[in-house]
Amino acid sequence: MPLKQTNSIPDIVIGRLPLYLRALTRLQQEGREVTSSHELGRKLGISSAQIRKDLSHFGGFGKQGTGYQIEYLVNKLRTVMQVNQEWHVALVGAGNLGSAILHYRGFADRGFRIAWVFDSDPAKIGAHIGGLTVQPLEELAQTIKENQAKLAMIAVPAEHAQSVANMLVEAGVQAILNYAPININVPDHVMVQYIDPVVHLQHMTFYLKD
Amino acid sequence: MPLKQTNSIPDIVIGRLPLYLRALTRLQQEGREVTSSHELGRKLGISSAQIRKDLSHFGGFGKQGTGYQIEYLVNKLRTVMQVNQEWHVALVGAGNLGSAILHYRGFADRGFRIAWVFDSDPAKIGAHIGGLTVQPLEELAQTIKENQAKLAMIAVPAEHAQSVANMLVEAGVQAILNYAPININVPDHVMVQYIDPVVHLQHMTFYLKD
Repeated sequence: MPLKQTNSIPDIVIGRLPLYLRALTRLQQEGREVTSSHELGRKLGISSAQIRKDLSHFGGFGKQGTGYQIEYLVNKLRTVMQVNQEWHVALVGAGNLGSAILHYRGFADRGFRIAWVFDSDPAKIGAHIGGLTVQPLEELAQTIKENQAKLAMIAVPAEHAQSVANMLVEAGVQAILNYAPININVPDHVMVQYIDPVVHLQHMTFYLKD
Repeated sequence: MPLKQTNSIPDIVIGRLPLYLRALTRLQQEGREVTSSHELGRKLGISSAQIRKDLSHFGGFGKQGTGYQIEYLVNKLRTVMQVNQEWHVALVGAGNLGSAILHYRGFADRGFRIAWVFDSDPAKIGAHIGGLTVQPLEELAQTIKENQAKLAMIAVPAEHAQSVANMLVEAGVQAILNYAPININVPDHVMVQYIDPVVHLQHMTFYLKD
Protein backbone atom coordinates (compact mmCIF):
# COMPACT_ATOMS: atom_id res chain seq x y z
CA MET A 1 0.00 0.00 0.00
CA PRO A 2 1.36 3.42 -0.86
CA LEU A 3 2.52 5.50 2.06
CA LYS A 4 4.00 8.90 2.62
CA GLN A 5 7.23 9.93 0.95
CA THR A 6 9.21 11.63 3.67
CA ASN A 7 12.55 11.22 1.95
CA SER A 8 14.09 10.14 -1.32
CA ILE A 9 14.03 6.37 -0.75
CA PRO A 10 11.22 4.73 -2.71
CA ASP A 11 8.44 3.29 -0.57
CA ILE A 12 8.79 -0.07 -2.32
CA VAL A 13 12.34 -0.27 -0.93
CA ILE A 14 11.13 0.56 2.58
CA GLY A 15 8.54 -2.20 2.23
CA ARG A 16 11.32 -4.77 1.67
CA LEU A 17 13.35 -3.77 4.74
CA PRO A 18 11.14 -5.74 7.16
CA LEU A 19 11.70 -8.85 5.01
CA TYR A 20 15.46 -8.36 5.18
CA LEU A 21 15.30 -7.85 8.94
CA ARG A 22 13.17 -10.96 9.40
CA ALA A 23 15.55 -13.15 7.39
CA LEU A 24 18.65 -11.70 9.08
CA THR A 25 17.20 -12.13 12.55
CA ARG A 26 16.50 -15.77 11.80
CA LEU A 27 20.08 -16.30 10.63
CA GLN A 28 21.23 -14.65 13.85
CA GLN A 29 19.05 -17.02 15.88
CA GLU A 30 20.73 -19.88 14.06
CA GLY A 31 24.05 -18.59 15.35
CA ARG A 32 25.28 -17.20 12.05
CA GLU A 33 27.48 -14.08 11.98
CA VAL A 34 27.97 -13.32 8.29
CA THR A 35 25.74 -13.61 5.24
CA SER A 36 25.71 -12.43 1.63
CA SER A 37 23.29 -10.74 -0.72
CA HIS A 38 23.20 -14.03 -2.62
CA GLU A 39 22.12 -16.03 0.41
CA LEU A 40 19.52 -13.43 1.39
CA GLY A 41 18.29 -13.34 -2.18
CA ARG A 42 17.80 -17.11 -2.27
CA LYS A 43 15.88 -17.04 1.00
CA LEU A 44 13.63 -14.18 -0.07
CA GLY A 45 13.18 -14.73 -3.80
CA ILE A 46 14.72 -11.31 -4.49
CA SER A 47 17.75 -10.79 -6.73
CA SER A 48 21.06 -10.22 -4.96
CA ALA A 49 21.58 -7.07 -7.06
CA GLN A 50 18.27 -5.69 -5.79
CA ILE A 51 19.25 -6.41 -2.20
CA ARG A 52 22.63 -4.70 -2.57
CA LYS A 53 20.93 -1.70 -4.19
CA ASP A 54 18.24 -1.48 -1.50
CA LEU A 55 20.74 -1.68 1.35
CA SER A 56 23.10 0.83 -0.28
CA HIS A 57 20.52 3.54 0.48
CA PHE A 58 21.48 3.16 4.15
CA GLY A 59 25.25 3.06 3.93
CA GLY A 60 27.95 0.58 3.01
CA PHE A 61 27.22 -2.66 4.82
CA GLY A 62 29.52 -5.14 3.17
CA LYS A 63 32.74 -5.06 1.31
CA GLN A 64 32.67 -6.86 -2.02
CA GLY A 65 33.44 -10.50 -1.30
CA THR A 66 33.33 -10.32 2.52
CA GLY A 67 29.57 -10.35 2.96
CA TYR A 68 27.37 -8.65 5.52
CA GLN A 69 28.01 -8.67 9.27
CA ILE A 70 24.58 -9.88 10.40
CA GLU A 71 24.52 -8.26 13.85
CA TYR A 72 25.59 -4.89 12.47
CA LEU A 73 23.03 -5.01 9.67
CA VAL A 74 20.25 -6.12 12.04
CA ASN A 75 20.97 -3.21 14.37
CA LYS A 76 21.17 -0.79 11.46
CA LEU A 77 17.85 -1.94 10.00
CA ARG A 78 16.19 -1.81 13.41
CA THR A 79 17.39 1.77 13.78
CA VAL A 80 16.31 2.76 10.28
CA MET A 81 12.82 1.34 10.81
CA GLN A 82 12.74 2.73 14.37
CA VAL A 83 12.08 -0.68 15.90
CA ASN A 84 15.12 -0.43 18.17
CA GLN A 85 12.45 0.73 20.61
CA GLU A 86 9.14 -0.83 21.63
CA TRP A 87 6.02 0.68 20.15
CA HIS A 88 2.82 0.36 22.16
CA VAL A 89 -0.07 -0.60 19.92
CA ALA A 90 -3.81 -0.22 20.52
CA LEU A 91 -6.01 -3.06 19.30
CA VAL A 92 -9.69 -2.54 18.58
CA GLY A 93 -11.75 -5.72 18.50
CA ALA A 94 -11.55 -8.61 20.97
CA GLY A 95 -13.37 -11.29 18.98
CA ASN A 96 -11.75 -14.41 17.54
CA LEU A 97 -9.31 -12.42 15.42
CA GLY A 98 -8.50 -9.92 18.17
CA SER A 99 -7.86 -12.78 20.57
CA ALA A 100 -5.52 -14.49 18.12
CA ILE A 101 -3.64 -11.22 17.69
CA LEU A 102 -3.38 -10.87 21.47
CA HIS A 103 -1.93 -14.38 21.73
CA TYR A 104 0.48 -13.93 18.82
CA ARG A 105 4.03 -14.12 20.14
CA GLY A 106 5.72 -12.57 17.12
CA PHE A 107 5.35 -8.91 18.10
CA ALA A 108 7.46 -8.60 21.21
CA ASP A 109 11.00 -9.07 19.94
CA ARG A 110 10.27 -7.25 16.71
CA GLY A 111 9.46 -3.85 18.16
CA PHE A 112 5.81 -3.99 19.18
CA ARG A 113 3.65 -4.63 22.20
CA ILE A 114 -0.11 -4.60 22.25
CA ALA A 115 -0.75 -2.39 25.21
CA TRP A 116 -4.50 -1.84 25.10
CA VAL A 117 -7.50 -3.66 23.67
CA PHE A 118 -10.98 -2.20 23.17
CA ASP A 119 -14.36 -3.65 22.28
CA SER A 120 -17.94 -2.40 22.26
CA ASP A 121 -19.49 -5.74 23.27
CA PRO A 122 -20.51 -5.68 26.98
CA ALA A 123 -19.89 -9.45 27.08
CA LYS A 124 -16.23 -8.90 26.18
CA ILE A 125 -15.48 -5.77 28.22
CA GLY A 126 -13.54 -6.64 31.35
CA ALA A 127 -12.40 -10.01 30.00
CA HIS A 128 -8.73 -10.89 30.37
CA ILE A 129 -7.09 -11.96 27.11
CA GLY A 130 -3.40 -12.47 26.59
CA GLY A 131 -2.51 -10.52 29.72
CA LEU A 132 -4.73 -7.50 28.94
CA THR A 133 -8.16 -6.44 30.13
CA VAL A 134 -10.65 -5.53 27.41
CA GLN A 135 -11.63 -1.87 27.78
CA PRO A 136 -14.88 -0.31 26.58
CA LEU A 137 -14.65 1.54 23.28
CA GLU A 138 -15.63 4.71 25.16
CA GLU A 139 -12.19 4.72 26.79
CA LEU A 140 -10.33 4.57 23.46
CA ALA A 141 -9.90 8.29 22.83
CA GLN A 142 -8.66 9.17 26.30
CA THR A 143 -6.34 6.15 26.56
CA ILE A 144 -4.71 6.87 23.20
CA LYS A 145 -4.36 10.58 23.91
CA GLU A 146 -2.93 10.11 27.42
CA ASN A 147 -0.37 7.59 26.17
CA GLN A 148 0.30 9.35 22.88
CA ALA A 149 -0.14 6.03 21.10
CA LYS A 150 0.70 6.28 17.41
CA LEU A 151 -0.11 2.77 16.19
CA ALA A 152 -3.38 0.85 16.16
CA MET A 153 -4.83 -2.33 14.70
CA ILE A 154 -8.44 -2.71 13.65
CA ALA A 155 -9.95 -6.18 14.07
CA VAL A 156 -13.66 -5.41 13.97
CA PRO A 157 -16.32 -6.39 11.40
CA ALA A 158 -16.11 -4.50 8.09
CA GLU A 159 -19.20 -2.40 8.78
CA HIS A 160 -17.61 -0.88 11.89
CA ALA A 161 -14.09 -0.37 10.54
CA GLN A 162 -14.56 3.16 9.21
CA SER A 163 -16.12 4.51 12.41
CA VAL A 164 -13.35 2.92 14.49
CA ALA A 165 -10.77 4.40 12.13
CA ASN A 166 -12.36 7.82 12.59
CA MET A 167 -12.09 7.47 16.37
CA LEU A 168 -8.44 6.42 16.13
CA VAL A 169 -7.52 9.30 13.84
CA GLU A 170 -9.37 11.79 16.02
CA ALA A 171 -7.41 10.50 19.04
CA GLY A 172 -4.10 11.04 17.27
CA VAL A 173 -3.14 7.64 15.84
CA GLN A 174 -0.79 7.98 12.86
CA ALA A 175 -0.57 4.44 11.53
CA ILE A 176 -3.30 1.80 11.28
CA LEU A 177 -3.09 -1.86 10.41
CA ASN A 178 -6.57 -2.82 9.25
CA TYR A 179 -7.68 -6.46 9.36
CA ALA A 180 -11.27 -5.65 8.38
CA PRO A 181 -11.91 -6.55 4.74
CA ILE A 182 -12.73 -3.02 3.62
CA ASN A 183 -10.75 0.02 2.56
CA ILE A 184 -10.92 2.86 5.05
CA ASN A 185 -10.55 6.55 4.37
CA VAL A 186 -8.18 8.55 6.54
CA PRO A 187 -6.48 11.96 6.28
CA ASP A 188 -3.24 12.18 4.29
CA HIS A 189 -1.07 12.29 7.42
CA VAL A 190 -2.31 8.87 8.58
CA MET A 191 -0.89 5.65 7.12
CA VAL A 192 -2.98 2.53 6.59
CA GLN A 193 -1.91 -0.96 5.68
CA TYR A 194 -4.21 -3.93 5.17
CA ILE A 195 -4.27 -7.59 6.03
CA ASP A 196 -6.89 -9.52 4.08
CA PRO A 197 -6.21 -13.21 3.40
CA VAL A 198 -8.76 -13.36 0.60
CA VAL A 199 -6.90 -10.71 -1.40
CA HIS A 200 -3.85 -12.99 -1.37
CA LEU A 201 -5.85 -16.12 -2.17
CA GLN A 202 -7.65 -14.47 -5.10
CA HIS A 203 -4.33 -13.19 -6.40
CA MET A 204 -3.13 -16.79 -6.58
CA THR A 205 -6.30 -18.40 -7.96
CA PHE A 206 -5.94 -16.16 -11.00
CA TYR A 207 -2.97 -18.32 -11.94
CA LEU A 208 -4.31 -21.75 -10.92
CA LYS A 209 -5.26 -24.29 -13.53
CA ASP A 210 -8.49 -25.82 -12.35
CA MET B 1 5.04 -11.25 -3.75
CA PRO B 2 6.05 -12.22 -7.25
CA LEU B 3 4.12 -15.02 -8.83
CA LYS B 4 4.14 -16.87 -12.11
CA GLN B 5 3.67 -15.03 -15.36
CA THR B 6 1.23 -17.14 -17.32
CA ASN B 7 0.21 -14.37 -19.66
CA SER B 8 1.08 -10.84 -20.61
CA ILE B 9 -0.73 -9.02 -17.80
CA PRO B 10 1.72 -7.76 -15.16
CA ASP B 11 1.45 -9.49 -11.79
CA ILE B 12 1.09 -6.12 -10.06
CA VAL B 13 -2.14 -5.58 -12.01
CA ILE B 14 -3.42 -9.02 -11.01
CA GLY B 15 -2.66 -8.13 -7.39
CA ARG B 16 -5.01 -5.13 -7.59
CA LEU B 17 -7.97 -7.08 -9.00
CA PRO B 18 -8.97 -8.47 -5.57
CA LEU B 19 -9.08 -4.91 -4.24
CA TYR B 20 -11.36 -3.84 -7.09
CA LEU B 21 -13.60 -6.85 -6.52
CA ARG B 22 -13.79 -6.14 -2.79
CA ALA B 23 -14.77 -2.50 -3.30
CA LEU B 24 -17.28 -3.33 -6.04
CA THR B 25 -18.91 -6.09 -3.98
CA ARG B 26 -19.36 -3.66 -1.12
CA LEU B 27 -21.02 -1.11 -3.43
CA GLN B 28 -23.28 -3.89 -4.66
CA GLN B 29 -24.22 -4.77 -1.08
CA GLU B 30 -25.15 -1.12 -0.60
CA GLY B 31 -27.60 -1.48 -3.47
CA ARG B 32 -25.58 0.46 -6.01
CA GLU B 33 -25.71 -0.48 -9.71
CA VAL B 34 -23.21 1.85 -11.38
CA THR B 35 -19.85 3.29 -10.35
CA SER B 36 -16.93 5.10 -11.96
CA SER B 37 -13.17 4.78 -12.04
CA HIS B 38 -13.10 8.05 -10.07
CA GLU B 39 -15.27 6.70 -7.26
CA LEU B 40 -13.30 3.43 -7.10
CA GLY B 41 -10.07 5.40 -7.13
CA ARG B 42 -11.16 7.53 -4.18
CA LYS B 43 -12.15 4.45 -2.19
CA LEU B 44 -8.91 2.61 -2.92
CA GLY B 45 -6.32 5.37 -3.07
CA ILE B 46 -5.48 4.42 -6.66
CA SER B 47 -5.67 6.87 -9.57
CA SER B 48 -8.70 6.58 -11.81
CA ALA B 49 -6.40 6.37 -14.82
CA GLN B 50 -4.65 3.37 -13.30
CA ILE B 51 -7.97 1.66 -12.65
CA ARG B 52 -9.17 2.21 -16.22
CA LYS B 53 -5.87 0.90 -17.57
CA ASP B 54 -5.92 -2.16 -15.30
CA LEU B 55 -9.48 -3.08 -16.21
CA SER B 56 -8.89 -2.49 -19.92
CA HIS B 57 -6.74 -5.65 -19.92
CA PHE B 58 -9.95 -7.63 -19.48
CA GLY B 59 -12.21 -5.92 -21.99
CA GLY B 60 -14.27 -2.78 -22.31
CA PHE B 61 -16.26 -2.40 -19.13
CA GLY B 62 -17.56 1.13 -19.31
CA LYS B 63 -18.31 3.67 -21.97
CA GLN B 64 -16.71 7.04 -21.40
CA GLY B 65 -19.07 9.00 -19.20
CA THR B 66 -21.49 6.21 -18.38
CA GLY B 67 -19.44 4.42 -15.73
CA TYR B 68 -19.13 0.75 -14.86
CA GLN B 69 -22.09 -1.62 -14.46
CA ILE B 70 -21.17 -3.02 -11.04
CA GLU B 71 -22.84 -6.43 -11.37
CA TYR B 72 -21.28 -7.04 -14.77
CA LEU B 73 -17.83 -6.02 -13.58
CA VAL B 74 -18.11 -8.11 -10.38
CA ASN B 75 -19.02 -11.19 -12.41
CA LYS B 76 -16.25 -10.52 -14.89
CA LEU B 77 -13.61 -10.13 -12.15
CA ARG B 78 -14.84 -13.24 -10.37
CA THR B 79 -14.46 -15.17 -13.61
CA VAL B 80 -11.02 -13.72 -14.36
CA MET B 81 -9.75 -14.62 -10.88
CA GLN B 82 -11.57 -17.97 -11.01
CA VAL B 83 -13.52 -17.26 -7.83
CA ASN B 84 -16.87 -17.83 -9.55
CA GLN B 85 -16.37 -21.27 -8.02
CA GLU B 86 -15.62 -22.36 -4.46
CA TRP B 87 -12.05 -23.44 -3.74
CA HIS B 88 -11.54 -25.90 -0.90
CA VAL B 89 -8.60 -24.87 1.23
CA ALA B 90 -6.52 -26.97 3.62
CA LEU B 91 -5.43 -25.29 6.85
CA VAL B 92 -2.42 -26.52 8.81
CA GLY B 93 -2.35 -25.36 12.42
CA ALA B 94 -5.26 -25.29 14.86
CA GLY B 95 -3.80 -23.00 17.53
CA ASN B 96 -5.06 -19.51 18.31
CA LEU B 97 -4.39 -18.26 14.80
CA GLY B 98 -5.77 -21.36 13.10
CA SER B 99 -8.91 -21.09 15.22
CA ALA B 100 -9.36 -17.45 14.28
CA ILE B 101 -8.99 -18.36 10.61
CA LEU B 102 -11.57 -21.12 11.01
CA HIS B 103 -14.02 -18.66 12.55
CA TYR B 104 -13.39 -15.95 9.97
CA ARG B 105 -16.57 -15.40 8.00
CA GLY B 106 -14.99 -13.53 5.11
CA PHE B 107 -13.99 -16.51 3.00
CA ALA B 108 -17.31 -18.08 2.03
CA ASP B 109 -18.83 -15.53 -0.29
CA ARG B 110 -15.46 -14.64 -1.83
CA GLY B 111 -14.62 -18.00 -3.35
CA PHE B 112 -13.08 -20.05 -0.54
CA ARG B 113 -14.03 -22.62 2.04
CA ILE B 114 -11.70 -24.14 4.58
CA ALA B 115 -12.45 -27.81 4.11
CA TRP B 116 -9.81 -29.50 6.26
CA VAL B 117 -7.68 -28.56 9.25
CA PHE B 118 -4.60 -30.43 10.46
CA ASP B 119 -2.45 -30.28 13.58
CA SER B 120 0.28 -32.39 15.12
CA ASP B 121 -0.75 -31.72 18.73
CA PRO B 122 -2.59 -34.75 20.20
CA ALA B 123 -4.50 -32.34 22.46
CA LYS B 124 -5.97 -30.60 19.39
CA ILE B 125 -6.60 -33.61 17.12
CA GLY B 126 -10.28 -34.53 17.12
CA ALA B 127 -11.38 -31.15 18.41
CA HIS B 128 -14.28 -29.44 16.63
CA ILE B 129 -13.49 -25.89 15.54
CA GLY B 130 -15.65 -23.78 13.29
CA GLY B 131 -17.55 -26.80 12.00
CA LEU B 132 -14.48 -28.91 11.22
CA THR B 133 -12.73 -31.71 13.07
CA VAL B 134 -8.98 -31.31 13.51
CA GLN B 135 -7.19 -34.14 11.68
CA PRO B 136 -3.73 -35.47 12.53
CA LEU B 137 -0.92 -34.19 10.34
CA GLU B 138 -0.35 -37.77 9.18
CA GLU B 139 -3.60 -37.57 7.22
CA LEU B 140 -2.57 -34.44 5.32
CA ALA B 141 -0.97 -36.05 2.27
CA GLN B 142 -3.74 -38.52 1.59
CA THR B 143 -6.53 -36.00 2.20
CA ILE B 144 -5.02 -33.46 -0.15
CA LYS B 145 -4.28 -36.01 -2.85
CA GLU B 146 -7.71 -37.63 -2.70
CA ASN B 147 -9.44 -34.27 -2.93
CA GLN B 148 -6.94 -32.74 -5.36
CA ALA B 149 -6.76 -29.68 -3.13
CA LYS B 150 -4.70 -26.91 -4.69
CA LEU B 151 -4.73 -24.29 -1.93
CA ALA B 152 -3.42 -24.38 1.62
CA MET B 153 -2.77 -22.03 4.52
CA ILE B 154 0.05 -22.46 7.00
CA ALA B 155 -0.65 -21.26 10.56
CA VAL B 156 2.05 -23.11 12.50
CA PRO B 157 5.07 -21.75 14.41
CA ALA B 158 7.92 -20.48 12.21
CA GLU B 159 10.18 -23.42 12.99
CA HIS B 160 7.67 -25.90 11.52
CA ALA B 161 6.60 -23.87 8.48
CA GLN B 162 9.17 -25.24 6.02
CA SER B 163 8.51 -28.89 6.84
CA VAL B 164 4.75 -28.32 6.55
CA ALA B 165 5.31 -26.55 3.23
CA ASN B 166 7.32 -29.53 2.00
CA MET B 167 4.45 -31.88 2.91
CA LEU B 168 1.93 -29.65 1.12
CA VAL B 169 4.03 -29.39 -2.02
CA GLU B 170 4.68 -33.14 -2.04
CA ALA B 171 0.91 -33.72 -1.77
CA GLY B 172 0.26 -31.51 -4.81
CA VAL B 173 -0.71 -28.13 -3.39
CA GLN B 174 -0.02 -25.32 -5.88
CA ALA B 175 -0.64 -22.19 -3.82
CA ILE B 176 0.21 -21.49 -0.17
CA LEU B 177 -0.77 -18.62 2.07
CA ASN B 178 1.83 -18.59 4.84
CA TYR B 179 1.02 -16.92 8.17
CA ALA B 180 4.25 -18.11 9.81
CA PRO B 181 6.77 -15.25 10.08
CA ILE B 182 9.40 -16.91 7.89
CA ASN B 183 10.07 -17.20 4.19
CA ILE B 184 9.59 -20.70 2.87
CA ASN B 185 11.26 -22.30 -0.13
CA VAL B 186 9.09 -24.09 -2.66
CA PRO B 187 9.54 -25.26 -6.25
CA ASP B 188 8.93 -22.75 -9.04
CA HIS B 189 5.52 -24.16 -9.92
CA VAL B 190 4.17 -23.42 -6.41
CA MET B 191 3.01 -19.93 -5.43
CA VAL B 192 3.46 -18.52 -1.95
CA GLN B 193 2.05 -15.38 -0.41
CA TYR B 194 2.66 -14.15 3.12
CA ILE B 195 0.70 -12.59 5.93
CA ASP B 196 2.90 -11.09 8.63
CA PRO B 197 1.50 -8.14 10.59
CA VAL B 198 4.95 -7.06 11.81
CA VAL B 199 6.16 -6.53 8.25
CA HIS B 200 3.34 -4.02 7.79
CA LEU B 201 3.92 -2.36 11.17
CA GLN B 202 7.66 -1.98 10.56
CA HIS B 203 6.96 -0.54 7.13
CA MET B 204 4.94 2.19 8.82
CA THR B 205 7.21 2.88 11.79
CA PHE B 206 9.92 3.84 9.30
CA TYR B 207 7.85 6.95 8.60
CA LEU B 208 6.68 7.74 12.13
CA LYS B 209 8.00 10.72 13.99
CA ASP B 210 8.61 9.55 17.51
